[in-house]
Amino acid sequence: MISIDNLINLALAEDIGSGDITTTAIVSQNVKGEAYVMAKEDMVLSGIGVFKKVFQNVSGQSSAVSNQFKEKFRDGEFVKKGKIIIEMSGNMRTLLTGERTALNFLQRMSGIATLTKRFVDEIAKPALSDETRLLRYARNDKSEGASPRNDKVKIIDTRKTTPNLRILEKYAVRCGGGINHRFGLYDGILIKDNHIKAAGGIIKAVKKIREGAHHLMKIEVETKSIKEVRDALKCKADVIMLDNMDIPTIKKAVKLIDKKALVEVSGGVNLKNVGEIASIGVDFISVGALTHSARAVDISMEIR
Amino acid sequence: MISIDNLINLALAEDIGSGDITTTAIVSQNVKGEAYVMAKEDMVLSGIGVFKKVFQNVSGQSSAVSNQFKEKFRDGEFVKKGKIIIEMSGNMRTLLTGERTALNFLQRMSGIATLTKRFVDEIAKPALSDETRLLRYARNDKSEGASPRNDKVKIIDTRKTTPNLRILEKYAVRCGGGINHRFGLYDGILIKDNHIKAAGGIIKAVKKIREGAHHLMKIEVETKSIKEVRDALKCKADVIMLDNMDIPTIKKAVKLIDKKALVEVSGGVNLKNVGEIASIGVDFISVGALTHSARAVDISMEIR
Amino acid sequence: MISIDNLINLALAEDIGSGDITTTAIVSQNVKGEAYVMAKEDMVLSGIGVFKKVFQNVSGQSSAVSNQFKEKFRDGEFVKKGKIIIEMSGNMRTLLTGERTALNFLQRMSGIATLTKRFVDEIAKPALSDETRLLRYARNDKSEGASPRNDKVKIIDTRKTTPNLRILEKYAVRCGGGINHRFGLYDGILIKDNHIKAAGGIIKAVKKIREGAHHLMKIEVETKSIKEVRDALKCKADVIMLDNMDIPTIKKAVKLIDKKALVEVSGGVNLKNVGEIASIGVDFISVGALTHSARAVDISMEIR
Amino acid sequence: MISIDNLINLALAEDIGSGDITTTAIVSQNVKGEAYVMAKEDMVLSGIGVFKKVFQNVSGQSSAVSNQFKEKFRDGEFVKKGKIIIEMSGNMRTLLTGERTALNFLQRMSGIATLTKRFVDEIAKPALSDETRLLRYARNDKSEGASPRNDKVKIIDTRKTTPNLRILEKYAVRCGGGINHRFGLYDGILIKDNHIKAAGGIIKAVKKIREGAHHLMKIEVETKSIKEVRDALKCKADVIMLDNMDIPTIKKAVKLIDKKALVEVSGGVNLKNVGEIASIGVDFISVGALTHSARAVDISMEIR
Amino acid sequence: MISIDNLINLALAEDIGSGDITTTAIVSQNVKGEAYVMAKEDMVLSGIGVFKKVFQNVSGQSSAVSNQFKEKFRDGEFVKKGKIIIEMSGNMRTLLTGERTALNFLQRMSGIATLTKRFVDEIAKPALSDETRLLRYARNDKSEGASPRNDKVKIIDTRKTTPNLRILEKYAVRCGGGINHRFGLYDGILIKDNHIKAAGGIIKAVKKIREGAHHLMKIEVETKSIKEVRDALKCKADVIMLDNMDIPTIKKAVKLIDKKALVEVSGGVNLKNVGEIASIGVDFISVGALTHSARAVDISMEIR
Amino acid sequence: MISIDNLINLALAEDIGSGDITTTAIVSQNVKGEAYVMAKEDMVLSGIGVFKKVFQNVSGQSSAVSNQFKEKFRDGEFVKKGKIIIEMSGNMRTLLTGERTALNFLQRMSGIATLTKRFVDEIAKPALSDETRLLRYARNDKSEGASPRNDKVKIIDTRKTTPNLRILEKYAVRCGGGINHRFGLYDGILIKDNHIKAAGGIIKAVKKIREGAHHLMKIEVETKSIKEVRDALKCKADVIMLDNMDIPTIKKAVKLIDKKALVEVSGGVNLKNVGEIASIGVDFISVGALTHSARAVDISMEIR
Repeated sequence: MISIDNLINLALAEDIGSGDITTTAIVSQNVKGEAYVMAKEDMVLSGIGVFKKVFQNVSGQSSAVSNQFKEKFRDGEFVKKGKIIIEMSGNMRTLLTGERTALNFLQRMSGIATLTKRFVDEIAKPALSDETRLLRYARNDKSEGASPRNDKVKIIDTRKTTPNLRILEKYAVRCGGGINHRFGLYDGILIKDNHIKAAGGIIKAVKKIREGAHHLMKIEVETKSIKEVRDALKCKADVIMLDNMDIPTIKKAVKLIDKKALVEVSGGVNLKNVGEIASIGVDFISVGALTHSARAVDISMEIR
Repeated sequence: MISIDNLINLALAEDIGSGDITTTAIVSQNVKGEAYVMAKEDMVLSGIGVFKKVFQNVSGQSSAVSNQFKEKFRDGEFVKKGKIIIEMSGNMRTLLTGERTALNFLQRMSGIATLTKRFVDEIAKPALSDETRLLRYARNDKSEGASPRNDKVKIIDTRKTTPNLRILEKYAVRCGGGINHRFGLYDGILIKDNHIKAAGGIIKAVKKIREGAHHLMKIEVETKSIKEVRDALKCKADVIMLDNMDIPTIKKAVKLIDKKALVEVSGGVNLKNVGEIASIGVDFISVGALTHSARAVDISMEIR
Repeated sequence: MISIDNLINLALAEDIGSGDITTTAIVSQNVKGEAYVMAKEDMVLSGIGVFKKVFQNVSGQSSAVSNQFKEKFRDGEFVKKGKIIIEMSGNMRTLLTGERTALNFLQRMSGIATLTKRFVDEIAKPALSDETRLLRYARNDKSEGASPRNDKVKIIDTRKTTPNLRILEKYAVRCGGGINHRFGLYDGILIKDNHIKAAGGIIKAVKKIREGAHHLMKIEVETKSIKEVRDALKCKADVIMLDNMDIPTIKKAVKLIDKKALVEVSGGVNLKNVGEIASIGVDFISVGALTHSARAVDISMEIR
Repeated sequence: MISIDNLINLALAEDIGSGDITTTAIVSQNVKGEAYVMAKEDMVLSGIGVFKKVFQNVSGQSSAVSNQFKEKFRDGEFVKKGKIIIEMSGNMRTLLTGERTALNFLQRMSGIATLTKRFVDEIAKPALSDETRLLRYARNDKSEGASPRNDKVKIIDTRKTTPNLRILEKYAVRCGGGINHRFGLYDGILIKDNHIKAAGGIIKAVKKIREGAHHLMKIEVETKSIKEVRDALKCKADVIMLDNMDIPTIKKAVKLIDKKALVEVSGGVNLKNVGEIASIGVDFISVGALTHSARAVDISMEIR
Repeated sequence: MISIDNLINLALAEDIGSGDITTTAIVSQNVKGEAYVMAKEDMVLSGIGVFKKVFQNVSGQSSAVSNQFKEKFRDGEFVKKGKIIIEMSGNMRTLLTGERTALNFLQRMSGIATLTKRFVDEIAKPALSDETRLLRYARNDKSEGASPRNDKVKIIDTRKTTPNLRILEKYAVRCGGGINHRFGLYDGILIKDNHIKAAGGIIKAVKKIREGAHHLMKIEVETKSIKEVRDALKCKADVIMLDNMDIPTIKKAVKLIDKKALVEVSGGVNLKNVGEIASIGVDFISVGALTHSARAVDISMEIR
Repeated sequence: MISIDNLINLALAEDIGSGDITTTAIVSQNVKGEAYVMAKEDMVLSGIGVFKKVFQNVSGQSSAVSNQFKEKFRDGEFVKKGKIIIEMSGNMRTLLTGERTALNFLQRMSGIATLTKRFVDEIAKPALSDETRLLRYARNDKSEGASPRNDKVKIIDTRKTTPNLRILEKYAVRCGGGINHRFGLYDGILIKDNHIKAAGGIIKAVKKIREGAHHLMKIEVETKSIKEVRDALKCKADVIMLDNMDIPTIKKAVKLIDKKALVEVSGGVNLKNVGEIASIGVDFISVGALTHSARAVDISMEIR
């Protein structure tokens, strides 16, 4: 997996190529500058560390003037429209050359965090006032009180992420109060419809998995009908995913499963129906849209 | 700039890591399989080449069974909900392991193409029946009739792209009938507000550029007011960007410029106002949302 | 994780550097040659695919003559001293230049497979005649009868592997009839003594894990005493490792656990005591020596 | 050739992948910790620099807390069972995440140094008390008295090293008092049996080498019989390797060569016969087992 | 594009490979040393930054002793034979190991700067005394007075550069008072004879370009005859290159173009005819020899 | 060391960047084309393999049309002005995009071969008619008669090569009939003046080398005076370099050495004095200018 540092460097290389011709021509090499970054709409912040790193990496390539940052908000915090997110100073060329790439990361990540928060809020009503807890959670800080308030149902992400940005996007989901599913194909077993077809049924698929995977892996099975839920229960799946079922079927399945496995609802979840699904008493609701369809939030950076 | 091939390999590495444990356990090494890919909503297709390449690259890593593809649509073509986009056969493991990564590319790119098409349609009404032309255009095929029908106003993209996917996203814009702006900071000069502040005014900025850039570069200047438009005209900018101006101001600016420079409108453009802006008679309308806020279109892949 | 292909290329670069000066000077560019590879002692074969790949990669760099291989044995099969393992023909330079690197892989991997087989044989007595099954198992071929005969106790490996060769060494363990533990720190949870110290006890450690890890992960806890086994049971660990315990303590622990968790014995296991440990009825016996202390088996390659 | 730094980073990537899920969940981000490393058996130390570097590199990826090390022994020194080798403090996550990779390097390298020392001791009896000299030698510190005491016969290594670890393993051999042979195929000429077959005899092979290699290279020829020794002498080989000869033949060969070339004995050397071979008066004894079959020595790391 | 840092590291790897065996054997690890670098002939300096960076990068790999540099001249300045260019101190091994690679860069770059200066002097006679201006220009320092004195005709480079050294060689051209043409195929449009043949004429070629390139690009057309100049004018090329024309034809072309396009003369330009060409009143004279045929200037480095 | 393949790919990336905008706009994707390459002056050819590889690599990135080549001359052969070197056909875009990079390699390498040939001819007079032999030599083809005719004195290269092109430039020297010195710092020992200063004299330096280097390395010592030659002889250097000595001193040194060591003359060698130096009876004459100051020969490529 590519490191975040390389990700940033590749993104800078993509934008800068053989040089930022406009900035190089206009600004002399050692001019200092100041800038501030402002929220142009309400948002949950995510990516401020990556944002800063972009400038550090530009700077590493062209300047000896060190960058200074003064963060007004931290990842996971709510930022009102018009608020300044971060103030910065450093080499003027660095500020101008890094601006677009840094914002591209920040706007996308904050967009995901903001959308995730909306889903989390839907299922967590009432009350989710305490932003400090949320923030701690986002940072993987496990000190007391850091887990999100709603500990019955959890909003989780999927593998429907932007190619090569998964680590950042899953982090953004946490910033918004969501929970991560497995990272990839290698660190969790999820038997999906196509696996079931390939194996010739759920029971055969689970049998093969038990022979082949190491002993620290749980098994999740995707089901599309009550019949498949029964099969999954029969072979003692640890987690059962209810895929694209309507509300009555979900209720029936939950009753049938009866705590004998964890339950994940997936498919067709949106801000309108997520509350109702949550109220049924499932364990996880996974939402692909968190990462594949969050729009960028509006953030601007201005030279002082 | 990272090659598309490396981009795909990194994305596969991100998802597969040390191995697709579910598929490896369930499916034997040399089983063959067939699958089809279906549009779950109306869309303009983009990324079918990348989609295929993903499976080729998975395959290169683990199998000797060659993949076969039967494309029903080509990039740039309109696909109705329910239509099969492509049929494929190959190693079953390859199909299952590559599925998510391949779809992640295809859904995102087609999402961009589809959104772009909506903008283009807004300004091109009536008539834009001829999909073959559009397709040819998307492929950079310069044979006669390949340019988009509306040759007065052009929808163009920005640098607000997903980090490291710019080459694909700009291609998707072309598939949707849009036009590309410069690729990055290195192949075009655009003097933005922050450059102007850093230089101490438009006139100083342009003067420095004329000294420093090579003789094959045109100069575009971003303006925020009629006064700045006047400055830009004074120093003979080749292109003048009207940034975040309201309709009356755009009209005034266009009149003032009077064909002495190309005109690009940028900022706050949406599907509702793009038609009116186009009717003013500007040359380019750039829309950041094409790439930073297009949602993924819904596409599924099913094993037969 | 580095790919096997890159691993081979790096190893070739390490040995060849700016060129194989002896071979280049002695052998003309397009001379063909033949060679055979012979077991100089009894062994279980592992790594024949990597062995061949080494020559392919040398060849890719310097010759148009294609290599031909005629394998007499397959990975996981037992090879008697004096038997020919593989015959090959190709560009003479390729054969000479690749020889040492190819053998370095093959001898090490077969050494691990051979040692693993000795451990497996100790616990599997009597009978384990059927080598075909073993072979199928090594290849992850899940067709019927492919799992190893002894399905009560399993010999498993550890993370005490050679830096950057883990994927090959874990494969060699499977060739010898062993089973793999988790691949690394990312695809399985194992709370070791140092984690327990850092967390302030097993109960605290498990509690934190339940909050932080995704829902498809089981939890294994390393215990050093009956008291710690009790703690692990109390927090419902999925797997309990008995680390460096003597036989009576292992027996006591197994009785206490009473199938409420899987049991892994680790530490101080050798060919003398492995049989007795196996007879207690644990689930897994992990042996670091399989990978950190297997000696290379003796294999020679001769030009015909 | 891959740098040691990259080797370490690849090894860390191999083990950590997308993250050390156990440690991340259990230990908060900025907790400090202390640890010590203890010899669990007698050994010659090698690799303490690499050991420390592993933690530096983990740290570089995740923490701002700097690591502190207090070395009790240096590479090349003898360490008694039960002695503390090094004490360390730093970020607790760093200590836990780097532990296994760091030990994998240290145990393997010290295993090689320890085995080498046993060979060197066999030929150096009596007396080899002065460890400081040995240490200096290992470090390539060429100040007086740094060369090993036995300067008549030298134990040297081979190219039978672990793929991609050669630079470390050859260093470990020096730590144990051995001497390095050529590093690879590019920095020394050794005409082996397969080259001789390919060339059609020793005399033809040496003739071709003299035409093709640059003028700063000596020529070593591998011989398997007295007849071949005669050929090697005839063409004025600088070094003659006696490969897999029995003691009487070695004696005969040495007499025949009579200082007209350096003599290297190779093949079938072990701790039992090395002393006798040394006493014949050869110049070098090369031992493949130093690197291909040294077992890891037992070293543990404990959090305080 | 490869970064300068990687370029240097690759060059060091090329020279050092598995180690500088002479220096390592002769000089102990922590010996300090001093050296100076002297011009052995008159020259314009270029590459002092790269020169220093080479030692920093060697140093980063092997030593803790920091390097100190005392520059006597700066890039773009004229250095008399016998003058000391830079004095340095640092780890002795670093100085010896980096010497050749550092000089290879410095001699080549200064060679290019020196040759460029000779061309510039030819067209700038009389007077070009002010070296400070030249220096500022080389550094892209755009403060007043930094542009080269002769602002009528400019000596420019071509793409006939050493593979992978283009960024350094184009910098060297600026150090010598020349101007850069486009960097590569991606940041400027130049329709050459082969393009014209492929397109079927200048007019067709330009037409296609106007459809396909983004709106910030100017268009240059290579012409070989007065007829082609006419075609280029007809399609409003921004720049017209007169390729390999004799003096009378150039004069005729310049008259014909009559300021309607910029004029670049190319092909067959040498120190003898450049003055005459300049006097005709063209805008640019491009000289491939600046980069493809400049000889290295003589510079030595001596240990004190 | 970077592979030739990577070298070519980096060079293409340097030139093409995000795309060859001129060619892409003008030429449609699947147009075929033909071209020929012509010598514009007399030359010794070198680099035709690299030349072809450039197009293969461009092609691999963008086209399915395979390239066809028809070579009229081979590396090491003499080509008269006006002769066609190679004819080619393939994708027209490939031909146009690869042209400059391919020629940049070919012109440089042939420049070096041509200059080397002039030095070789100077010392080989009379007769050196047989080009076939020369060609065979260049290709490392060791069949009879392949060594260059003059086997008394040899023209050899140095490490004064273009950063990262050493492998190609040393090959070009062989194409011109020269001989290679060591490749880098790692495969040969050469004690230079700066080493001698650092060690405190030749005798001390050689002593340290004998302790530290492996037993297959010869030792060359650079001397600047008869006194130093005496020192070098005293410590039995295998090769003695006479650095920057005048003819009488060289003669005196050669007499003094009297075949007890090989003799290399270096420094200040040019086409005028090389013949006289050769006649003294030294073994090698090394010429830095072969690689650091050869000018590119003139070669053009034309589309048919």
